[in-house]
Amino acid sequence: MDCPLPISRYDKIVMGHGSGGTLSAALLRQVFLPAFSNDLLAKLEDQASVTVDATRIAFTIDSFVVRPLFFPGGDIGKLAIHGTVNDLAVGGATPKFIAGAFILEEGFPIADLDRIVASMKAACAEAGVQLVTGDTKVVERGKGDGVYITTAGIGVLRPGAALSVHAVKPGDRILVSGTLGDHGIAIMSTREGIEFETKLESDTAPLHGLAAAVMDAAPGLRCMRDPTRGGLSSTLNEIAAASKVGIEIAESALPIRPQVKAACEMLGLDPLYVANEGKLVAVVPADQADRALAAMKAHPRGRDAALIGKAVPEYPGMVVMTSKIGGSRVVTMLAGEQLPRIC
Amino acid sequence: MDCPLPISRYDKIVMGHGSGGTLSAALLRQVFLPAFSNDLLAKLEDQASVTVDATRIAFTIDSFVVRPLFFPGGDIGKLAIHGTVNDLAVGGATPKFIAGAFILEEGFPIADLDRIVASMKAACAEAGVQLVTGDTKVVERGKGDGVYITTAGIGVLRPGAALSVHAVKPGDRILVSGTLGDHGIAIMSTREGIEFETKLESDTAPLHGLAAAVMDAAPGLRCMRDPTRGGLSSTLNEIAAASKVGIEIAESALPIRPQVKAACEMLGLDPLYVANEGKLVAVVPADQADRALAAMKAHPRGRDAALIGKAVPEYPGMVVMTSKIGGSRVVTMLAGEQLPRIC
Repeated sequence: MDCPLPISRYDKIVMGHGSGGTLSAALLRQVFLPAFSNDLLAKLEDQASVTVDATRIAFTIDSFVVRPLFFPGGDIGKLAIHGTVNDLAVGGATPKFIAGAFILEEGFPIADLDRIVASMKAACAEAGVQLVTGDTKVVERGKGDGVYITTAGIGVLRPGAALSVHAVKPGDRILVSGTLGDHGIAIMSTREGIEFETKLESDTAPLHGLAAAVMDAAPGLRCMRDPTRGGLSSTLNEIAAASKVGIEIAESALPIRPQVKAACEMLGLDPLYVANEGKLVAVVPADQADRALAAMKAHPRGRDAALIGKAVPEYPGMVVMTSKIGGSRVVTMLAGEQLPRIC
Repeated sequence: MDCPLPISRYDKIVMGHGSGGTLSAALLRQVFLPAFSNDLLAKLEDQASVTVDATRIAFTIDSFVVRPLFFPGGDIGKLAIHGTVNDLAVGGATPKFIAGAFILEEGFPIADLDRIVASMKAACAEAGVQLVTGDTKVVERGKGDGVYITTAGIGVLRPGAALSVHAVKPGDRILVSGTLGDHGIAIMSTREGIEFETKLESDTAPLHGLAAAVMDAAPGLRCMRDPTRGGLSSTLNEIAAASKVGIEIAESALPIRPQVKAACEMLGLDPLYVANEGKLVAVVPADQADRALAAMKAHPRGRDAALIGKAVPEYPGMVVMTSKIGGSRVVTMLAGEQLPRIC
């Protein structure tokens, strides 16, 4: 990844360091990677693949600080389970076990905690995972924001699975499993008090089933990612940088709901940068693209799947979008903060 | 565990819910256990033992919200690595992989983050673990407190290891690996501005080596715990409740530094309730107690180890301490909050 805004310009944390874009990447490269240098961390996948004895397992962690805690289509608890399940699933692993840690603010209503925990329970059941260990801490009023949840997860890697954002080759096709930006716009609309004629909900959902279907259909699958914080643009830029390929996408091919488009215009947002919490980006060899797309469309969570572009040998590390009117523009990574605390 | 203060008395989170005592236990029993009911979670160990394919691994998670972030003998980063390493070690596992998630407050100095990360790096190296995956989130100023760190860990269980707080039998001996209360008093002294003639530091340390030495010396080992939040009293009460035995300890046998004793008197604290971050409690069959104690004393982290008591058939679920002047008193679990944000 490029770091166009070097961290040295900042001596204090700014909200943009949490954006999932270039500032987040800069913080990672300048502070965390040099310290914890090891091959596993340096791969920058959404999960680490480790071998314990002879078993290959995937291991991941994410903190969730979304606000509001409850939003159309979900809540922080559901998001925390789905996020961790999905980080395992996109790595080619079957999610198995979850650990959950809660940082509670003094004064937080226990009734709200009950709702969140019930939601996590249902999400675990749907994803076929067990929450097996946990922790709770309490901080004083004004030192938190209700509840922050951190979930870690373990999954079993499929035999032979070696998905990697470094594995993409020119000619490969880029698929997305459905409409873009639903989660981010559902959250922002709630915060801004925007109402739609038709209900817009977060797309938060577990992707293990869809991911398995894609793996079955396309044995040559290069990599999968869930385009969460930072949106599709961050995911594609990460793939382009890691695999040293260019990526071309067609604006006309992007599945976006009309109300998301409208809200983006109203809020001055670009749907390419808006978070998704139940969508899969998959990169497959060209000759397996049709089968992979068909497998997505046949799955309940992939009905709006689309082929949106391809990897090219030109301009390695860059993402270029051809617009509906024929022009083209570089899709850079989100620099700072567009939507803070979206997950 | 008993829940003398039922959660129904509270409809909002209070600081005591983070104490590690009865209020924490009540929150766990009323909110979390019913939701995520499964045999693994219900064991209430400090780590979950799960089987992935044929490999038995231990899995744990903890959030760290200690304040101040830097204290004599350590910092939040060191504590986060040690805490997770130790939760694996006391379960009979060799710690292998760590995941780290950071919740950063807007405005937090990156120089402080660098110091914390460097400290985590050193702690990982000392404990022989790799930090292989991570996450960072940023929250607005006033919604956090500098940085909160959540660490999850994976370890490989020793073949045959089946340590459990449910396994203690009457007659078993209770060992502690060193002086009590050093971490909690180091933190509280810093907060309160108390100075000692001799330096008092947190005992934060990795316990995997010491734990392995005890397992080697005492093959009949019943269980180990690190008496962190809630102190020795919480650990012993948990063991007594889980194994349905009484536990008798002798005040005169407890290793406590003079300056910790003095500070406890000054602050109105009981050292039995003060957190440790580098001490091991081990329960062993009577005939293996000498060997286990010798193994502790032979280890650099166990030089002040002591045999402090035994399990008895009388008063199951209770902990009783005979005082230096011959009387005895029930050592109850910490009810509410004694030392908030100690870890």
